[in-house]
Amino acid sequence: MRLLGRARTLTRRVPRARRAAEFDRAVAEFFMRIALEEAQKGVGRTHPNPTVGAILVKNGRVIARGHHRRAGTAHAEIVAIEAAGPRARGADLYTTLEPCDHWGRTGPCSEAILEAGIKRVITASADPNPLVNGKGIARLRRHGVEVMTGVLKAEADALNRPFFRYIRTGMPWVTLKAAVTLDGKLATATGDSRWVTGEEARRRVHELRDRVDAILVGANTVLRDDPQLTTRLGPDVETRDPVRVVVDSHLRLPLDRKVFHLRSKARTIVATVEPAGSRRARRLEALGVEVWSLRAKAGRVDLRALLKRMAKAGLLSVMVEGGAEVFATLLRERLADELLLFVAPKVVGRSGLSWVGELGISQMEKAMTASALEVEHLGRDLLLRARLRDDDEPSAARAR
Amino acid sequence: MRLLGRARTLTRRVPRARRAAEFDRAVAEFFMRIALEEAQKGVGRTHPNPTVGAILVKNGRVIARGHHRRAGTAHAEIVAIEAAGPRARGADLYTTLEPCDHWGRTGPCSEAILEAGIKRVITASADPNPLVNGKGIARLRRHGVEVMTGVLKAEADALNRPFFRYIRTGMPWVTLKAAVTLDGKLATATGDSRWVTGEEARRRVHELRDRVDAILVGANTVLRDDPQLTTRLGPDVETRDPVRVVVDSHLRLPLDRKVFHLRSKARTIVATVEPAGSRRARRLEALGVEVWSLRAKAGRVDLRALLKRMAKAGLLSVMVEGGAEVFATLLRERLADELLLFVAPKVVGRSGLSWVGELGISQMEKAMTASALEVEHLGRDLLLRARLRDDDEPSAARAR
Repeated sequence: MRLLGRARTLTRRVPRARRAAEFDRAVAEFFMRIALEEAQKGVGRTHPNPTVGAILVKNGRVIARGHHRRAGTAHAEIVAIEAAGPRARGADLYTTLEPCDHWGRTGPCSEAILEAGIKRVITASADPNPLVNGKGIARLRRHGVEVMTGVLKAEADALNRPFFRYIRTGMPWVTLKAAVTLDGKLATATGDSRWVTGEEARRRVHELRDRVDAILVGANTVLRDDPQLTTRLGPDVETRDPVRVVVDSHLRLPLDRKVFHLRSKARTIVATVEPAGSRRARRLEALGVEVWSLRAKAGRVDLRALLKRMAKAGLLSVMVEGGAEVFATLLRERLADELLLFVAPKVVGRSGLSWVGELGISQMEKAMTASALEVEHLGRDLLLRARLRDDDEPSAARAR
Repeated sequence: MRLLGRARTLTRRVPRARRAAEFDRAVAEFFMRIALEEAQKGVGRTHPNPTVGAILVKNGRVIARGHHRRAGTAHAEIVAIEAAGPRARGADLYTTLEPCDHWGRTGPCSEAILEAGIKRVITASADPNPLVNGKGIARLRRHGVEVMTGVLKAEADALNRPFFRYIRTGMPWVTLKAAVTLDGKLATATGDSRWVTGEEARRRVHELRDRVDAILVGANTVLRDDPQLTTRLGPDVETRDPVRVVVDSHLRLPLDRKVFHLRSKARTIVATVEPAGSRRARRLEALGVEVWSLRAKAGRVDLRALLKRMAKAGLLSVMVEGGAEVFATLLRERLADELLLFVAPKVVGRSGLSWVGELGISQMEKAMTASALEVEHLGRDLLLRARLRDDDEPSAARAR
């Protein structure tokens, strides 16, 4: 009842007449936040499925929790219902995504909800697939279950942006990430970039890696920095590595690069325009590296084709970690959704390596624009975050 | 008594034993803030004098205010005492800077304070000149006036950083100001820079101009942007223009530039290495422009010598508005104190004009470092503010 008490304080100032409905809403939002926290546990682990959290509430108490752990395991609702056992009867189910109505590994969730005797279902996001949308909910209502939808929808949608992007457009969610000086440089003229930012910002990058399906980098970055691109957050933190995708259009990278010799459960993929089965490709494959032969655009890997293939392979959230040429191509072709710029209070001067390559913009009016900047302080550094296009802008539509 | 009442609430939670002393301090700080607000009115108008505010307080009420308006007019204390007339007797005087003890236009302030029958004097900043420091205060104490010093000293010192810098080192306070894209560019490859930032940021620049003694720009900026460098805050705001200093080492600027044809009460100065009285110099002088012939360094105006001369001419706070070469020289020679970077959520790509010229830094470890970044949101843009060296670092010492 402690939780319910806290929820009640939220509504204390509401006029008496509107109080009942607003109280219901406030309670629903209160518990949906707990379901969202539950969903957070699956971020970066469920691809190509969405991340979902669910809780069961009875008499103002959370009696069971569940989240979707990874593709092929039970949906969040099922996890929570199974955890509750017979106590589920008469409970409210909070789920961050509309329950499915199709036959998966554990049967449709709508079926299981009815069987468990759930009294009320509260959802946040709707299923983005128009063929599915609303079917589970309709079935529940037909069977007398009370359903409230769209509670904290914006928060829940944000959690599954990559999934929604993919369902709508067939493309992944693409985040550009760079660590730069105050004059926008990735490195000095000699290519030295150790380190631009401080420890807190660098730790933050590993937290981000832990949450994305894949990291994408250009060959120059691998050549110059020889990064591992793994998630390293210390021995006490349970992490997983993202899939690493290196764009090496002509397979010119030396085989000694660290990224080809990792002990990591996640794959390393090299994207190239060289034909499959070429000698260089086979040498990479002998190291356990996957080689994707893709169509060329201006003599290099067509990044739109690469991203599309990544999405099809279930890599729905992609963090691009450089270099300047890859950033420029993604910006020019409007393939980037979001920018994360770690800015250190340093200056290296003109000959340093700018974080964006050539964009062919001659008028300031024609500059690429981002949304207003959000700011986070990380030690002495800043993290600037901006959206590079509207959420609804269908990237696939632009491709056609 | 209203003010005193407010001050009392500040001290309500102090243990009884320490209450008297802390109450005195809290009251002193409360009224010193009012004196500081008074001083603010003079910022940008008093050079080469410091900005000072003073108030008289009697029975918990402010009975008179004064600020130093400009060099050659009465000191703040005198303004306040004259405003109070005979009511000054028995009052407390709050002044943001230690009262002087030397004979100026209106006699030493310490003398006037004694004559007016002031009971108590509360000061914030000490006089930075070691020959003066403490003399006025000593005289007041000898004559039985109670004196409390150092109240809100940090705030008051910040108000007069340029003045203190000058007294200690003979150099002005130098702020670099640039409006840049997220990739650190001032303009596109063609030099187009209209506009990088939005209206709120541009208005802020005019507010900054209103507060500095001088603006410094390089010839390229005048050639490319043809700026007016005046303070424009609309018809309802009382402003003044800063002195404009254009570095044109070889007097190559065309005479049609706006900065040579302004209706402004403030001077325009051109700094050059060409000899005084040259034909080009005389043509500028015919337009009412002042020409300063300075020693050369690597074929260009020695910026350290220029800044020193500006300080001697009473221009103690200097805002440098570009371009990239001037910024680079000031950074290389460690002549810059502060950086104000207006950052717009835009990207123009590599060929754009970087805001800092060549610094000859090949290792990231050797990058110029600034203090942690302070952030202000201005519409969709950000203002990043950082200190480029410690306050106490004597720039003149480095020059020798």
